[in-house]
Amino acid sequence: MATSKEQNNGDLTRLRDAIREFTRERDWDQFHTPKNLAISVSIEAAELLEQFQWLQTGVTSELGERRLTDVRHEMADVLVYLIRLADKLDINLVASAWEKLELNRAKYPADKVKGDSRKYDEY
Amino acid sequence: MATSKEQNNGDLTRLRDAIREFTRERDWDQFHTPKNLAISVSIEAAELLEQFQWLQTGVTSELGERRLTDVRHEMADVLVYLIRLADKLDINLVASAWEKLELNRAKYPADKVKGDSRKYDEY
Amino acid sequence: MATSKEQNNGDLTRLRDAIREFTRERDWDQFHTPKNLAISVSIEAAELLEQFQWLQTGVTSELGERRLTDVRHEMADVLVYLIRLADKLDINLVASAWEKLELNRAKYPADKVKGDSRKYDEY
Amino acid sequence: MATSKEQNNGDLTRLRDAIREFTRERDWDQFHTPKNLAISVSIEAAELLEQFQWLQTGVTSELGERRLTDVRHEMADVLVYLIRLADKLDINLVASAWEKLELNRAKYPADKVKGDSRKYDEY
Repeated sequence: MATSKEQNNGDLTRLRDAIREFTRERDWDQFHTPKNLAISVSIEAAELLEQFQWLQTGVTSELGERRLTDVRHEMADVLVYLIRLADKLDINLVASAWEKLELNRAKYPADKVKGDSRKYDEY
Repeated sequence: MATSKEQNNGDLTRLRDAIREFTRERDWDQFHTPKNLAISVSIEAAELLEQFQWLQTGVTSELGERRLTDVRHEMADVLVYLIRLADKLDINLVASAWEKLELNRAKYPADKVKGDSRKYDEY
Repeated sequence: MATSKEQNNGDLTRLRDAIREFTRERDWDQFHTPKNLAISVSIEAAELLEQFQWLQTGVTSELGERRLTDVRHEMADVLVYLIRLADKLDINLVASAWEKLELNRAKYPADKVKGDSRKYDEY
Repeated sequence: MATSKEQNNGDLTRLRDAIREFTRERDWDQFHTPKNLAISVSIEAAELLEQFQWLQTGVTSELGERRLTDVRHEMADVLVYLIRLADKLDINLVASAWEKLELNRAKYPADKVKGDSRKYDEY
């Protein structure tokens, strides 16, 4: 029987397993300290950002076909390292995102922040 | 009937919808250009990294309970912005991750890179 | 007669002028909004970090000759965009660094934080 | 007599010495591996970027007085860690920036790239 973790987290669980296998085959687990994986998330996030560096807004029409593919692959890299880090720290990513959304609902009440992008701590 | 996208991407689809609702209630869609969302992914990734800044490896015993919770929330922030960006660009995150894993399998053949962390372009 | 700004900031002033000229010759000033330059600082910082991604500590003996040159060039890229951003916002970088050092002296009193890397807000 | 390094690098040399002293007084040198300092540059760069996250262009009139001060301090933080990293790796930051500017002149010939922000590798 599937654990509750797997029931809640189907697609990411399958990805997690494939990433584990990919890592094991290359004997790369030795490099995957949580700190190194957090570094990797950050580096891949910057490579994603690089795609938008000189654009106005980065909507698909401005991105173009080729750059959209690059964006998709950079987003994949961020997600893969995020899943790998979650695996090493035994964190359920999807459950954490739901939890954080709840916290954000309390932190940024819709009626107070509507249309305003200032950060919570500026209120 | 569910679309193939939703069948492949159940948990993230539900999160995507909740994030859409969260954004709509606050009238924040106007700020969510793809470029601003890519910036946000990068900022949240750095906040995640900050948790590991002065640690040796960041394993759970070194992180401690309180910092592990912070890590979980920062990872959630990265995922939430990643999902939001994918939504704005009509990208299927999970499918992209599978595709990128395939590309990485070809780029880093297990028998060539075993136990070696050098980047592909150094070979 | 040199302005006080130039007297305090000789080397960076000369670099600033050369970067201005470099930008003007390429008609790139139109892309150099402060926001785009802050993005660029962040991207270059991540390229710098990438050089250390899988290393233990990154001391020169571990870096090696070739990678040390890459590190030097990535650091230069960060500095160049930082100088360019300071130019666009009319900020004196060197004076700001002295000011921040003073603030940090007050925030982290030597006798309280000695040998301890925890952030100020954890005290 | 001053060394050629100090002659070329007056302001940053004085800052470097003050940062050394600041670090020594707090016994923080033990945390300042090149890898940790590169991480710190990246984190501070993201905090700088955060100031511009939801702005249009970040020109001074859009930034406002208070945020401009924050920007100045975040830029200082990036510079301070950059100087500290250069110190640990015995790199002359100013000389490296001049060298990189020369390389960029060759990589992006003014007559070829005028008014065009595409990266070199797209040509």
